[in-house]
Amino acid sequence: MALVEQFDEYRSRMNERILGSDNLIIKRLFNLDTNTYAEGAVSSKTKELIGLACSMVLRCDDCVKYHLGKCHELGVTEAEMQEVFSIATVIGGTIVIPHLRRAVEYWDELQKGTE
Amino acid sequence: MALVEQFDEYRSRMNERILGSDNLIIKRLFNLDTNTYAEGAVSSKTKELIGLACSMVLRCDDCVKYHLGKCHELGVTEAEMQEVFSIATVIGGTIVIPHLRRAVEYWDELQKGTE
Amino acid sequence: MALVEQFDEYRSRMNERILGSDNLIIKRLFNLDTNTYAEGAVSSKTKELIGLACSMVLRCDDCVKYHLGKCHELGVTEAEMQEVFSIATVIGGTIVIPHLRRAVEYWDELQKGTE
Amino acid sequence: MALVEQFDEYRSRMNERILGSDNLIIKRLFNLDTNTYAEGAVSSKTKELIGLACSMVLRCDDCVKYHLGKCHELGVTEAEMQEVFSIATVIGGTIVIPHLRRAVEYWDELQKGTE
Amino acid sequence: MALVEQFDEYRSRMNERILGSDNLIIKRLFNLDTNTYAEGAVSSKTKELIGLACSMVLRCDDCVKYHLGKCHELGVTEAEMQEVFSIATVIGGTIVIPHLRRAVEYWDELQKGTE
Amino acid sequence: MALVEQFDEYRSRMNERILGSDNLIIKRLFNLDTNTYAEGAVSSKTKELIGLACSMVLRCDDCVKYHLGKCHELGVTEAEMQEVFSIATVIGGTIVIPHLRRAVEYWDELQKGTE
Repeated sequence: MALVEQFDEYRSRMNERILGSDNLIIKRLFNLDTNTYAEGAVSSKTKELIGLACSMVLRCDDCVKYHLGKCHELGVTEAEMQEVFSIATVIGGTIVIPHLRRAVEYWDELQKGTE
Repeated sequence: MALVEQFDEYRSRMNERILGSDNLIIKRLFNLDTNTYAEGAVSSKTKELIGLACSMVLRCDDCVKYHLGKCHELGVTEAEMQEVFSIATVIGGTIVIPHLRRAVEYWDELQKGTE
Repeated sequence: MALVEQFDEYRSRMNERILGSDNLIIKRLFNLDTNTYAEGAVSSKTKELIGLACSMVLRCDDCVKYHLGKCHELGVTEAEMQEVFSIATVIGGTIVIPHLRRAVEYWDELQKGTE
Repeated sequence: MALVEQFDEYRSRMNERILGSDNLIIKRLFNLDTNTYAEGAVSSKTKELIGLACSMVLRCDDCVKYHLGKCHELGVTEAEMQEVFSIATVIGGTIVIPHLRRAVEYWDELQKGTE
Repeated sequence: MALVEQFDEYRSRMNERILGSDNLIIKRLFNLDTNTYAEGAVSSKTKELIGLACSMVLRCDDCVKYHLGKCHELGVTEAEMQEVFSIATVIGGTIVIPHLRRAVEYWDELQKGTE
Repeated sequence: MALVEQFDEYRSRMNERILGSDNLIIKRLFNLDTNTYAEGAVSSKTKELIGLACSMVLRCDDCVKYHLGKCHELGVTEAEMQEVFSIATVIGGTIVIPHLRRAVEYWDELQKGTE
């Protein structure tokens, strides 16, 4: 799980650094971000799938990794994930494919980690 | 329902024009697009919510209108829609707000049409 | 000032509609947005110039109009505005030019309104 | 040719306004823009097809219109145009489709004008 | 040719992984992608130049590398490549420059490989 | 200062390679880029803050690093930087956060280098 651990370590370390500064606006945005994915009229799982697809079409590899991790925790199945990958790639076009490759690689690693 | 009718009329007319040409690649992409949102491991409703959020973060008003129409047909509630609006606006930032305004306006019109 | 009045009227009406809903996430994001441009270590005027340039490179006409209005209120001069237009167009490339045209048109209207 | 004339009139008027100001950076960028599409190792026609496809994937309707006009002047055929439309839509994904609709409408109008 | 080999190895391995899954939508999109660049009314070479420029303005390094490889195979000259680099950088602005640096580095490596 | 030195070395080497070619359009764009940030009606410091924020919302890590270096040279304070980080992250949304992490890391390294 080298990819997953590297991503988590860097993300945690830098988030701590950012939240340790006096930047109130950023702190509140981080807080808002957490609340956005809370269980509600739409389930957390669906929200994470939405977050993942948005991250793919916006082509942000780190955002994709974060939401893949969350989807994995919430029990998203291989079949569900393949369909969300399809939606994002069709909406965003072939320009998304390099990000799809990295998403699939990371998703595979997440799933190996729990076997 | 002026906004809705105008959008539907223009979209239908131009899609007909495009599909009436000999452009096989585009025809197959249109076909792929339709299949992408079919019921599967992920429900059509969730897929439309994903399509809507992706359209908002990519800031494509016409794509937003299209998916709002589909969400309306599939019975998405006001509470669900507000949460999807939140996710897209938090991910995409304040740059999404003008598109949120137009999305809310169109959503309101869709809902008035069925009262 | 037809362009300015139309923009302001639509923006106010839809913001009221959005803030009148129960969407707490969006309400807090709107609030955060306002605080972001408050006078601080960086002046409000510089913050509005930053907001304007970001809106131009992201090619959001409504965001550009909003920040042009604020820049006008805060006394940004013609010479300052031309330099900010330059930065945004050089960073964003010729794809920004159609948005530059609309920005210049709106800026001219704002300035006529105060003569 | 209402669409074409409206586009040309607004573009000419605002370009004149912009080039009439003292903004040297923008003037030089406009000049650079013109030179970029000059006949060279790559033909002007191919350069305009490239400019068109880039404008489509970046989803700038006005840029698309401009390059469609140039392609029309340079004798791009219907078959060539359909293939360039395909490339841009496959690269950029279904998010490009609303822009494809407007491109096709404008292209049709350009061709009617010369019948 | 370290850069070229690394890119080709990762791309082939992940494409195989993706095409080995049951994701019909993605498989058909990959197939469509291949057909899009086939010889037609527009030559394959021109199509690859279009694909390259679109990849640059969308700032996708892996897409740029892929199309540079294809352009190299199809005999695109240094002079032609420099002109396409110019178009993409002028359209996309200075934000494209870091991607131009990596494109030039990769292009140089491709050309060294065939000396 | 490993990050800073790596960035500077690669950037200098590739810029030299690019400016050593016969690409007049690119050379003139590089020249225009330099002039854009010169002291004028708007100060160089404000222009660099604008360049930084635009780079963040466009999510170009290398562009962010370049402008962070310039801001550091021009004496931008920690408080000013935090406010510019806020603006860019609020405008661009949570999709900017991974770029914010890398920006903070680089900024910290720049500041350590001068202690």
